[in-house]
Amino acid sequence: MIKVGIVGGTGYTGVELLRLLARHPQVSLSVITSRGANGQRVDEMFPNLRGCVDLAFTEPDPEALAGCDVVFFATPNGIAMNGARELLEAGVRVVDLAADFRIRDIALWERWYGMTHASPDLVAEAVYGLPEINRAAIAGARLVANPGCHVTAVTLGLLPLVRSGWIDTTNIIADSKSGVSGAGRKAEVHTLMAEAGESFRAYAVAGHRHQPEIRQVLEGHSGRAVGLTFVPHLVPMVRGIEATMYARLNTAAGDLQALFEDFYAGEPFVDVMPKGSLPETRSVRGSNFCRLAIHRPQDGETAVVLSVIDNLVKGAAGQAVQNMNIMFGLPEDAGLDVIGLLP
Amino acid sequence: MIKVGIVGGTGYTGVELLRLLARHPQVSLSVITSRGANGQRVDEMFPNLRGCVDLAFTEPDPEALAGCDVVFFATPNGIAMNGARELLEAGVRVVDLAADFRIRDIALWERWYGMTHASPDLVAEAVYGLPEINRAAIAGARLVANPGCHVTAVTLGLLPLVRSGWIDTTNIIADSKSGVSGAGRKAEVHTLMAEAGESFRAYAVAGHRHQPEIRQVLEGHSGRAVGLTFVPHLVPMVRGIEATMYARLNTAAGDLQALFEDFYAGEPFVDVMPKGSLPETRSVRGSNFCRLAIHRPQDGETAVVLSVIDNLVKGAAGQAVQNMNIMFGLPEDAGLDVIGLLP
Amino acid sequence: MIKVGIVGGTGYTGVELLRLLARHPQVSLSVITSRGANGQRVDEMFPNLRGCVDLAFTEPDPEALAGCDVVFFATPNGIAMNGARELLEAGVRVVDLAADFRIRDIALWERWYGMTHASPDLVAEAVYGLPEINRAAIAGARLVANPGCHVTAVTLGLLPLVRSGWIDTTNIIADSKSGVSGAGRKAEVHTLMAEAGESFRAYAVAGHRHQPEIRQVLEGHSGRAVGLTFVPHLVPMVRGIEATMYARLNTAAGDLQALFEDFYAGEPFVDVMPKGSLPETRSVRGSNFCRLAIHRPQDGETAVVLSVIDNLVKGAAGQAVQNMNIMFGLPEDAGLDVIGLLP
Amino acid sequence: MIKVGIVGGTGYTGVELLRLLARHPQVSLSVITSRGANGQRVDEMFPNLRGCVDLAFTEPDPEALAGCDVVFFATPNGIAMNGARELLEAGVRVVDLAADFRIRDIALWERWYGMTHASPDLVAEAVYGLPEINRAAIAGARLVANPGCHVTAVTLGLLPLVRSGWIDTTNIIADSKSGVSGAGRKAEVHTLMAEAGESFRAYAVAGHRHQPEIRQVLEGHSGRAVGLTFVPHLVPMVRGIEATMYARLNTAAGDLQALFEDFYAGEPFVDVMPKGSLPETRSVRGSNFCRLAIHRPQDGETAVVLSVIDNLVKGAAGQAVQNMNIMFGLPEDAGLDVIGLLP
Repeated sequence: MIKVGIVGGTGYTGVELLRLLARHPQVSLSVITSRGANGQRVDEMFPNLRGCVDLAFTEPDPEALAGCDVVFFATPNGIAMNGARELLEAGVRVVDLAADFRIRDIALWERWYGMTHASPDLVAEAVYGLPEINRAAIAGARLVANPGCHVTAVTLGLLPLVRSGWIDTTNIIADSKSGVSGAGRKAEVHTLMAEAGESFRAYAVAGHRHQPEIRQVLEGHSGRAVGLTFVPHLVPMVRGIEATMYARLNTAAGDLQALFEDFYAGEPFVDVMPKGSLPETRSVRGSNFCRLAIHRPQDGETAVVLSVIDNLVKGAAGQAVQNMNIMFGLPEDAGLDVIGLLP
Repeated sequence: MIKVGIVGGTGYTGVELLRLLARHPQVSLSVITSRGANGQRVDEMFPNLRGCVDLAFTEPDPEALAGCDVVFFATPNGIAMNGARELLEAGVRVVDLAADFRIRDIALWERWYGMTHASPDLVAEAVYGLPEINRAAIAGARLVANPGCHVTAVTLGLLPLVRSGWIDTTNIIADSKSGVSGAGRKAEVHTLMAEAGESFRAYAVAGHRHQPEIRQVLEGHSGRAVGLTFVPHLVPMVRGIEATMYARLNTAAGDLQALFEDFYAGEPFVDVMPKGSLPETRSVRGSNFCRLAIHRPQDGETAVVLSVIDNLVKGAAGQAVQNMNIMFGLPEDAGLDVIGLLP
Repeated sequence: MIKVGIVGGTGYTGVELLRLLARHPQVSLSVITSRGANGQRVDEMFPNLRGCVDLAFTEPDPEALAGCDVVFFATPNGIAMNGARELLEAGVRVVDLAADFRIRDIALWERWYGMTHASPDLVAEAVYGLPEINRAAIAGARLVANPGCHVTAVTLGLLPLVRSGWIDTTNIIADSKSGVSGAGRKAEVHTLMAEAGESFRAYAVAGHRHQPEIRQVLEGHSGRAVGLTFVPHLVPMVRGIEATMYARLNTAAGDLQALFEDFYAGEPFVDVMPKGSLPETRSVRGSNFCRLAIHRPQDGETAVVLSVIDNLVKGAAGQAVQNMNIMFGLPEDAGLDVIGLLP
Repeated sequence: MIKVGIVGGTGYTGVELLRLLARHPQVSLSVITSRGANGQRVDEMFPNLRGCVDLAFTEPDPEALAGCDVVFFATPNGIAMNGARELLEAGVRVVDLAADFRIRDIALWERWYGMTHASPDLVAEAVYGLPEINRAAIAGARLVANPGCHVTAVTLGLLPLVRSGWIDTTNIIADSKSGVSGAGRKAEVHTLMAEAGESFRAYAVAGHRHQPEIRQVLEGHSGRAVGLTFVPHLVPMVRGIEATMYARLNTAAGDLQALFEDFYAGEPFVDVMPKGSLPETRSVRGSNFCRLAIHRPQDGETAVVLSVIDNLVKGAAGQAVQNMNIMFGLPEDAGLDVIGLLP
């Protein structure tokens, strides 16, 4: 059994890790830390875990964490970059669900995140945890940077096109829509139900931290310069991301459906739906799937990709477990064979 | 034109007062105060008011407020009991949308609200602003205590029965359900959309401040002792309260439909629906109506009353405007002829 | 492996059975029928099942069904009473998720359901599938009548009280609230999102089919006459039932918390929460749990029980699987160890 | 007083016309027809109108309608093209809220709508009812074609850019999102709350009828060829459209904020919000406003326009009333001074 620790388990990625790991056949939940909730039973805060998780939150204790095989940081940005080193040195593997190790360009990261990075050397070592493009590197990694939620939905939708050479990569549009759990479990006015319910709006149009991350993945994987306009929106629902992507096809463009099916052949968690499909977020609710559809409206010059994930699963905790499975040589879908909750 | 001031206008009762008063034919919006938002334009915080309200929030300034004909306190509990006196002495009439003047028994109030009351004499003077039972007193009042939202829905539904002598008043059940705007515009975790969305639960089962208020109204109006079990619930929607009330009929019970229709004959904002109706909250969304239906399932011994209001209108700002209209001798529905938004 | 057939799998109980059975370690999904969707792949209608269920709908074929070990009827009322006999005679065990075999009094059933019953003898044989009171009988049953969704939430909440002798059983109130999936996957105006969204209302106040079923369970289990007022409500959410029950305590009443904990000690799917808890429907979303809390507001004479289930799981498909597990001597929670999806 | 008739008033545009017209100071509601609901009181179907609209549905009767000054067709596509002529000949002015007279190219219309057009000559006569570009023509029109809901949101957002010459008009993206009331009050599975709630998806990616209509408006107004990719999405809310538009700026591009403010200066119902704004649909709920914001992320080459309307008001009934006001020389905002319902 793999002994697992979770640092900062009082947010939505924390409870979601617990939901998945509590049913993982080869995991033993060992430690879950929270300064604020120290001493409180986990299932008191998250009653869905009653009868399934028998743990209480504890103060972060390096010794206890060092006894784990792997530690997940489900913390705000800026925590893991300080806490990971000690664990790595103790031989613990680390998956960071925040953004500390995602962006390779330190200056760029510091500009978007407004902090000085505490561990640039670990950024250099960290492996970006998108299994569909980095599986081998993840298998050998000590430190994995789990991708952002919008990033996962958008890059999985765009990778085949960007690699293909069939689109103008300098002018890609990604119009992404997220449920409110993406904003986390923080007391804020703008995500109150009375503010976000029965309404729809864009946010962060001027610039969102996931934009440089998407570009890094796409450029890194294709070797092409990528120009991307990324606009996120807030949907009056709890879970789910749908990203609609638009790219201009060039004359080299061939069979888009085949391109996608070939690109993701054998992938356990990317489902290229049949031609003409309209993926809905509920089809992946609670599951680790990304469902994709590729359209070419009226056989014109624009490719339209539709991509859906559960932001808390494939967009966070599920992908983290997938990365853990790869790091420890387990079946990649261990603990992740959850079917989406529809309706 | 009546010059109106609003103290504490950054919450939902504040914006709702503005929505109604901005279209009131005999009102001139004069002052709106907020310590936190001092200097900010009102329509920057509430963009629905763009083009309709040309005011900015100001620091509470007794002199400016003293220039008004009427001041609404849309503040948290405990503010109006300190601020009302100075205004009253300056000849301003006051409507408090909070709870400071609702409960006549000071000790009872202090127990439920956990504060020492600053102005017991004003409690004695204040008129309880439920027009359906207090119209004449409101007309002559300097100080009106606007009723609670659950209280309005529940008491309007129970008053005819409690007065009739047809029920056992010692064992009444009020199962009330409220949209999340009832919790106000405060940054709190439990009313985040990711917490309150797609879920349903009871709250305050051990005791809710509206319970003694309901009892006071019912007992005061009927002269009978009232035993009431009141359980509020949180509905995953923004606006609306539905209260389902259960009372045990005695052998004196007659035609319930006629009882309700007679009781509310001529009332401009209480709509007794036809026999067999199932009022839905959306039928009163944005409007000042309370819609009621009275049932006697299978002609048995239990009366079931269904009552719906918009918690922010008849349950707060609309009723406050209705009280103002009465206080100033205006048509009672001035500024309140808004039709519910359905769908 | 148990070979399973499903008759009428295009509704929400059908897709929910598939979600649970596809992950059941001892089940082989064999047949799923639908006249209307004959030939269509199941995962085309329900894309959440893509990659998990490899079946197409077929015309109902008695021979194919006769080859199953157990057949679930996920059909409208009135189908199983005609189709079950042939299967039972072929040695197939049957679980009916509709109401055909729930009410033992045929005349009463015919009055509420507006049909002549085709198989009164099978009603006499059928075992009512509420494991918490009928486990032994279910284990030996050929034919199980799966309980109604409101019925499950309400009776699990009331059984300890009704058995205890501590309440007046002639005057019980059950105020139940259901998400819209309870209305099924039928094209109807009143459950359109534009009709049921952002609104709340009671329905079937004059009488609902679950009322006599609740009374039958409570009276059968306690030997006492039960007077029940049952009012269901429609909540603007997809899944979940919350029932709030009110009963008048007599002087014999003792420790209510202990009563409930003792009554359900050892039950795998009934969770009596700690004193003071407020169960929320999302804590059981997708899971087979019923979570209960028992309150006695202000130590008065009224007991208030709060009960939540997922209407499609413990209220339908999950309970059906639980019954199947009992019928076949499997661990009762096989395939049902799903943790509720929160948030 | 203007005598108004409504043909086909049982849908959402019908009830919304009634909500607005019942409070219009110069309108007398005269006739409302429905074959299916003949004889039923309007406020029985739409209880929000109780006390406000005292009409019953009647069979469509040409004579009764001919006595009106103006008739609104709130019917499915294909009705007004048959019924309008007789009314026009009787001197009645007509506003069609459906699509019969929107597309000037009859062959194009017939292809998208799958019908033979019954009155091509009336298409030639009809004035397209987007006041912001057609005010003078509407004032003199006998027959007005009220624009589609997505069309209104998208074209108001794009018109300034398309006219400016600052963008590549051959490659515009419009990613539009609509609440479910846009699908109408028809019994269909895919708009059930249990299908459309808590989920998000695109629809009609292959082609939507509003696409040619948007192109016609933009090309007609600018004289430029327009290439447009239009993808609508379904939002789990009742009311509101948000459209996010993307266009490639050329080197001529100047101050975008000024462009929009100048273009819409003096428009009563188009609100160009301050630079950096993020319009939310709830800010226009129930109101006739279109709120716009124009962004140029990171001062790059892509312009992003955000546009929100209430699909049933500015997207349908409100715009129809606005057109009526223009046709009859009334103040353009008569009956439309409704403030958006926020929250």
